[in-house]
Amino acid sequence: MNDVLQRLAELLEQRKQADPQSSYVAKLYAKGMDSILKKVGEEATETILAAKDGDAQHLIYETADLWFHTLVMLAHAGLNPQQVLDELARREGLSGLEEKAARSKE
Amino acid sequence: MNDVLQRLAELLEQRKQADPQSSYVAKLYAKGMDSILKKVGEEATETILAAKDGDAQHLIYETADLWFHTLVMLAHAGLNPQQVLDELARREGLSGLEEKAARSKE
Amino acid sequence: MNDVLQRLAELLEQRKQADPQSSYVAKLYAKGMDSILKKVGEEATETILAAKDGDAQHLIYETADLWFHTLVMLAHAGLNPQQVLDELARREGLSGLEEKAARSKE
Amino acid sequence: MNDVLQRLAELLEQRKQADPQSSYVAKLYAKGMDSILKKVGEEATETILAAKDGDAQHLIYETADLWFHTLVMLAHAGLNPQQVLDELARREGLSGLEEKAARSKE
Repeated sequence: MNDVLQRLAELLEQRKQADPQSSYVAKLYAKGMDSILKKVGEEATETILAAKDGDAQHLIYETADLWFHTLVMLAHAGLNPQQVLDELARREGLSGLEEKAARSKE
Repeated sequence: MNDVLQRLAELLEQRKQADPQSSYVAKLYAKGMDSILKKVGEEATETILAAKDGDAQHLIYETADLWFHTLVMLAHAGLNPQQVLDELARREGLSGLEEKAARSKE
Repeated sequence: MNDVLQRLAELLEQRKQADPQSSYVAKLYAKGMDSILKKVGEEATETILAAKDGDAQHLIYETADLWFHTLVMLAHAGLNPQQVLDELARREGLSGLEEKAARSKE
Repeated sequence: MNDVLQRLAELLEQRKQADPQSSYVAKLYAKGMDSILKKVGEEATETILAAKDGDAQHLIYETADLWFHTLVMLAHAGLNPQQVLDELARREGLSGLEEKAARSKE
């Protein structure tokens, strides 16, 4: 389906060497994890608002923003999106996933 | 890198036929978009808390939960994660992405 | 204990007549409810981050920001903080409150 | 206008001695700050959803839930809502408040 996430992860890795003045991501890295997490919270809220409005294009756009900032967060934490996909795959068959969700319910 | 998102999207599509009693996802669909969005908000908060704790395994786990519930949201809205990946790819080269992020800053 | 909330509510009411150029709150009103709700989501995230850091002064500051933007939200919706306080009082004795919270748990 | 917040703060203080089995708040304290902050995040999301729906009664209800859980958070952190009200009063005249908001904009 995609290598988009992997390519993005590589680009985000390269941005660690970039001048904070020249790059939005490098600036976020320089500001530190709290600033990245504020963006994650912000984009989650915007995704929720777009979903309530029922505007498909806007929802795709805001979800892309949310995923993007979680990728920045993972990169800043020294993690790779493949680890998240592996976790999703591990749960897959969805029985696994649903089991987990059920467990975390209590 | 992954077809995990695509396989998950297919499984989430199939869950639309499932008995709400038998499946966590079918139950979420039956409760409606607000319940799905509450989960998105909840998992965003848990991701932020895990990132603050600096526990890598926990952060991967919570990010998987967050992505998973955005996939449920997309499915419920009749959308496919490929559309989000396409949006991310479109912005890619990161110059595009950063341009957008910069614009949305004001 | 305070009339701070009431005085703030009155000031927020007056701001509805103000020039959006001259006032932060008037500008938020002009942008509309979504912009106000984005601020509520943002300040909730910042409150959570401050609490995790265990910095008392910062937590007081961010909680004030969060309450302030919920007051702007109430004003924009034509509501008064007294209605929220009445709801809290109604639940009070805490048995009422806890009963509700217990019920909403399921 | 209200002593509701002060009375709630006192009740929340008393709950620190309560059996976690017998009280929703005592149970939250026992689970710790992360559990309280998850509730703050959750109630912020529910407030946003209620505001989008434009249902006044529901919005009052969810805002009460949000304020209530920030009071639990303050109590668990050893703080008093009066400190938040003092911070709001300090900014008041709204010129102060707006100045701060403007500054935090950048």
